[in-house]
Amino acid sequence: MCDYLGVGLRPENTFFVQSQVPELAELVMYFSFLVTLARLQRNPTVKDEAKTYGVTNMSYGFLGYPVSQAADILAFKADLIPVGQDQLPHIEQTREIVRSFNRTFGREVFTLPQPLVGEVPVLVGTDGDNKMSKSLDNFVAFAHSPEETERRILNMVTDRKRAYRKDPGHPDECFAFKYWSIFSPSDTPVVRQECESATRGCKDCKAQLASKLNEHLAEIRERRQQYASQPDLVWDILATSIKRARAVAVETLTEVREAMKIAFPKLQIKGGK
Amino acid sequence: MCDYLGVGLRPENTFFVQSQVPELAELVMYFSFLVTLARLQRNPTVKDEAKTYGVTNMSYGFLGYPVSQAADILAFKADLIPVGQDQLPHIEQTREIVRSFNRTFGREVFTLPQPLVGEVPVLVGTDGDNKMSKSLDNFVAFAHSPEETERRILNMVTDRKRAYRKDPGHPDECFAFKYWSIFSPSDTPVVRQECESATRGCKDCKAQLASKLNEHLAEIRERRQQYASQPDLVWDILATSIKRARAVAVETLTEVREAMKIAFPKLQIKGGK
Repeated sequence: MCDYLGVGLRPENTFFVQSQVPELAELVMYFSFLVTLARLQRNPTVKDEAKTYGVTNMSYGFLGYPVSQAADILAFKADLIPVGQDQLPHIEQTREIVRSFNRTFGREVFTLPQPLVGEVPVLVGTDGDNKMSKSLDNFVAFAHSPEETERRILNMVTDRKRAYRKDPGHPDECFAFKYWSIFSPSDTPVVRQECESATRGCKDCKAQLASKLNEHLAEIRERRQQYASQPDLVWDILATSIKRARAVAVETLTEVREAMKIAFPKLQIKGGK
Repeated sequence: MCDYLGVGLRPENTFFVQSQVPELAELVMYFSFLVTLARLQRNPTVKDEAKTYGVTNMSYGFLGYPVSQAADILAFKADLIPVGQDQLPHIEQTREIVRSFNRTFGREVFTLPQPLVGEVPVLVGTDGDNKMSKSLDNFVAFAHSPEETERRILNMVTDRKRAYRKDPGHPDECFAFKYWSIFSPSDTPVVRQECESATRGCKDCKAQLASKLNEHLAEIRERRQQYASQPDLVWDILATSIKRARAVAVETLTEVREAMKIAFPKLQIKGGK
């Protein structure tokens, strides 16, 4: 949460904790009858994640998390979904659920969401092999100190083909160079030239990158720290935001139950309240 | 609902409509991470039901309905579950979820439920092949008139080996005889003797059975009709009952969230309220 506020998302944006919006679980339940087992088993992201995390005996819930993501999106009728490239199959799954729901219940309750993939579709981790991920500890966090950030960047995998300092480097196969191109694109021509001519060593290159990164992160860290030092304020922002989120989800669920003809007005029971 | 009240369940018992207790969906969500895909795919009842209903491209939700049944049981911490024989695998599944939940979260939130199988573990339908089921239209309903009941019993499959009226019958392979043994056991010695000696024809036998059955159902039908003629009373009973059920489910969910450490008291949000 402090990270989000740190990078500049505003307190009046909507943040929510999934488990605090139980309407989402209800949506998952309904959607789960609109998605086939075979379709989920074909989902490439589910397969990848299972491989990454070494899941051998997959749980029922793990297989179904694309359905859960669809609920996270559709409860709020979001139309533009900022995602990494690897999440595109989930947006496609969500779109299929929208079509299936509207067709099955004969009402246009949901509209088709669109993915919004940023300029850096996936940020590779410091191990050079996987996307940045907390569980793999191959990441740099806003909460890390400049020193810790430097340590992590210095340990980063670089050009695997460059055995000695005097060998010319291959920037296009170097993970540190990728970071240069993301965080300081204007420096890349110089970095490339020095790397290829072996006038720049990997260690110095990474130290310099770390200092660029720390510069880049300074403002974010400062804002993050301001929030982190006021935990009660952050809890308040979150509680208010969850209430806001929940009000929208409750409204969507009312529509969903009506479309599904399980609203039972005679019971005078408000679902989700 | 009128059927339940008709057979003698009391208005002060607890009846509920699954969709009106959204806490159940939340429990399903949590339980779904404690059950493996492989385990559900091995469930014999899931396989049987898929076969019975001709499900070829199974939905994610269909595979998971034993998890949903576990939630129906555990939300109310039921300890004795009246089921048909065919539902025993679900009770076993529920018991596994109890063990897994308590072990995973280190707290005895749930106790192990026991199945209670009645004297007639499964009532075979009038088609003689499947258990009585609305979707297969092989059933006799309390809402049926005595005439409709007679018609259905007369259409019932009997002794498949008895080709002619003058052939001796095989009561042990006759579906009508099964009904005799359930609804009028004291008559079975006579029915058996007359059937085996071919002094009783199948048509007369079923007409007699229908009249016994109608006799048996008379009181139930009358009570049922009393409720059916007062729909507002029935809606009221149901609404009150659902509120009672929901209060229990909300309490269970509070315990569940605490055990799972997703209660977040600082958010001051009451889940499920």
